[in-house]
Amino acid sequence: MGAEILTIGTELLLGQTIDTNAAYVAEQLAAAGIDVYWKTTVGDNEGRIGEALRQALSRSEIVIATGGLGPTEDDLTCRVIAAVLARPLVLDRTVLESIRRRFADRGLVMSKNNERQALIPEGATVLPNPRGTAPGLLIPARDGRMVVAMPGVPSEMQPMLTEQVIPRLRKRFEIGARIGSRILKTCGITESQLDEAIGDLARSSLNPTIALLAHPGEIHIRLTVKTKSHEEAERHLDGLEARLRERLGALLYGRDGERLEEVVGRLLLDAGQTVAVAESCTGGLVCHRLTNPSGSSAYVVRGEMVYSNRAKEDRLGVPHELIARHGAVSRAVAEAMASGMREAAGTDLALGITGIAGPGGGSAEKPVGLTYIAIASAEGVISREWRFLGDREINKLLASQAALDMVRRHLMSRRDATLA
Amino acid sequence: MGAEILTIGTELLLGQTIDTNAAYVAEQLAAAGIDVYWKTTVGDNEGRIGEALRQALSRSEIVIATGGLGPTEDDLTCRVIAAVLARPLVLDRTVLESIRRRFADRGLVMSKNNERQALIPEGATVLPNPRGTAPGLLIPARDGRMVVAMPGVPSEMQPMLTEQVIPRLRKRFEIGARIGSRILKTCGITESQLDEAIGDLARSSLNPTIALLAHPGEIHIRLTVKTKSHEEAERHLDGLEARLRERLGALLYGRDGERLEEVVGRLLLDAGQTVAVAESCTGGLVCHRLTNPSGSSAYVVRGEMVYSNRAKEDRLGVPHELIARHGAVSRAVAEAMASGMREAAGTDLALGITGIAGPGGGSAEKPVGLTYIAIASAEGVISREWRFLGDREINKLLASQAALDMVRRHLMSRRDATLA
Repeated sequence: MGAEILTIGTELLLGQTIDTNAAYVAEQLAAAGIDVYWKTTVGDNEGRIGEALRQALSRSEIVIATGGLGPTEDDLTCRVIAAVLARPLVLDRTVLESIRRRFADRGLVMSKNNERQALIPEGATVLPNPRGTAPGLLIPARDGRMVVAMPGVPSEMQPMLTEQVIPRLRKRFEIGARIGSRILKTCGITESQLDEAIGDLARSSLNPTIALLAHPGEIHIRLTVKTKSHEEAERHLDGLEARLRERLGALLYGRDGERLEEVVGRLLLDAGQTVAVAESCTGGLVCHRLTNPSGSSAYVVRGEMVYSNRAKEDRLGVPHELIARHGAVSRAVAEAMASGMREAAGTDLALGITGIAGPGGGSAEKPVGLTYIAIASAEGVISREWRFLGDREINKLLASQAALDMVRRHLMSRRDATLA
Repeated sequence: MGAEILTIGTELLLGQTIDTNAAYVAEQLAAAGIDVYWKTTVGDNEGRIGEALRQALSRSEIVIATGGLGPTEDDLTCRVIAAVLARPLVLDRTVLESIRRRFADRGLVMSKNNERQALIPEGATVLPNPRGTAPGLLIPARDGRMVVAMPGVPSEMQPMLTEQVIPRLRKRFEIGARIGSRILKTCGITESQLDEAIGDLARSSLNPTIALLAHPGEIHIRLTVKTKSHEEAERHLDGLEARLRERLGALLYGRDGERLEEVVGRLLLDAGQTVAVAESCTGGLVCHRLTNPSGSSAYVVRGEMVYSNRAKEDRLGVPHELIARHGAVSRAVAEAMASGMREAAGTDLALGITGIAGPGGGSAEKPVGLTYIAIASAEGVISREWRFLGDREINKLLASQAALDMVRRHLMSRRDATLA
């Protein structure tokens, strides 16, 4: 028994869309202690959706379907579920009203075909979808089985699954054993360096297990433990995390869903410090990431994207001779950008970033990927040279990651000095 | 009938690995004119691999399996195929020799368990794997059906599929037809509005078919055609694209892999125009996107990220009284930001963007998501009010999309006016 994932959409069979929904659902179910034994994909075809659903119900207690809940003619999921479970479709006035309101809020009139999304199999529990028009559905099937239908848009499906579907399934199927997991996030270390630092633990620890997952600019360490209770899982994870922290120290920047920009934001808030950004090769990305967390207007004051030498001089007071002598991509210019920005914005900290994102603009002496990042603060200016090896967009991302991490380390060392 | 993809591996059911093999196989089969109607995933479990294989053979002419061909105990694919097709496993001396040579070439001795990889179902055609130890297999099944097994490592599987498997399948099943596809990208229209605009074509056009795919801030239209030749496919796609262009006009911004920022960049280059950006709620994202395409330094001059009222006044010359009278999030301030930026940067165009990204800062009169975007040019200033309904980061993305699209439309109407 266990759960089966059914993803619906012709685009998934044409290979134009990679089925990330199936992986997300599988991962969340595993974490909740729900075993998944089958994953099936069919196109927007009434007969095959029905066959897949009947088959899934013959061998799995829980069937989780995504996709095919939209307003158009080729969105068939709801109709097929109703037919297979022999439940009539009924108009749900609450759903209809919420779709109508969604359109009205945007100053639009609901189109006729959106009404189809309010036709719900009788007896279904409606799962509200604050991010779109298609609600999710929880529909009881024979022998205590359960069909769940969710929209295929990942940003709508993901919170619906974790906030509404999984808590209900755990309760309904009295799922006791849990798989607990925790992600520890590092930056500033490569995968092989990390393997050297903690490989012995990774190989000897069986419960929790340890796995390394590489992402651009950061490596994640996933701890996974199987226990009877949440408390026991947390105790095991805490123990292993403490051992890893002892070895890795400041290389660990955060846990689970935390992002680097959120950690930096919290450190800025805690220290009561403000920041401004002068960026060239990152083109606004550092400022964009710093302003992603809610409440970031409390510490992000201002940003300048200065591509041209002229703008570096005019806006940040970088001396013309400095650029002429060292070139725009140089440690001296990064430092002058940071100092100039700090003075102009009146912030506690300022970043200066200059580099060659590529693909053009490189030379033997200054290759694509060469980047200088400086931080100006009351204590002076610190700077670092980086050499990134990606394409243009990866180099922008890696430079933004390095810049945020330099701010993090600066604030941490400052905090530790205050505490000492 | 048609083909069915069977991916094998417990990691795919835990969500730790996204099933990119299935997407790759699907895409290549589609392009070769082989229809795929089912995709199934099971773990490394003898019973379930067997069940999935029997099921696939009951409804598909071709079954393409990936994974489970490695040398370890949990690599079961070959054994299960032999059992389901009632063919004994026989030792293939050529395969054994090539595995042994592979190890010898690296100065290693073949381990005992690698010998298992030379046990092949009787009657199978062996597909050499120059990139790894596990060969691929083509095994005839009853009623002229065919089972293909390939290793799960993408770098080994992909060339095996395109160079060895697909040519054999096309020949064996006498497949003349090919599938061609094209993506047309729209922005500035909702999925249901688009359905109303072209739904009749979508429902009546059977070859090519038309499907709508929703993404944040844009809807894609996928055209898929089945023909005898590449040329014929292109001719059909061109014809349907022309009909859609007639109806949708400027709502279509690009094709296939093209991104909105690339289209905007090309229009700027063609017009010989430069741009500067003054952004508040988007926090640098518009500048970041504009600087993603290589060569963007030719037209992006400068950006200002002005969160505070103070910065809007100091950096862009937005009058203090204007902010006091209308509020920082207002049409008047967006327009003043755009004009101020254009004057300060000396560019042909400048954007001014102000809004409430959320989650805080909204009111009954000015709700979260309210955003004003203005473009200043030699012809004056145009502006538009938007109401976005996402969370903070989606609102940033939707506002950046709207801003880029306004630049695109401005440049297009200017170009059309010049041509007229």
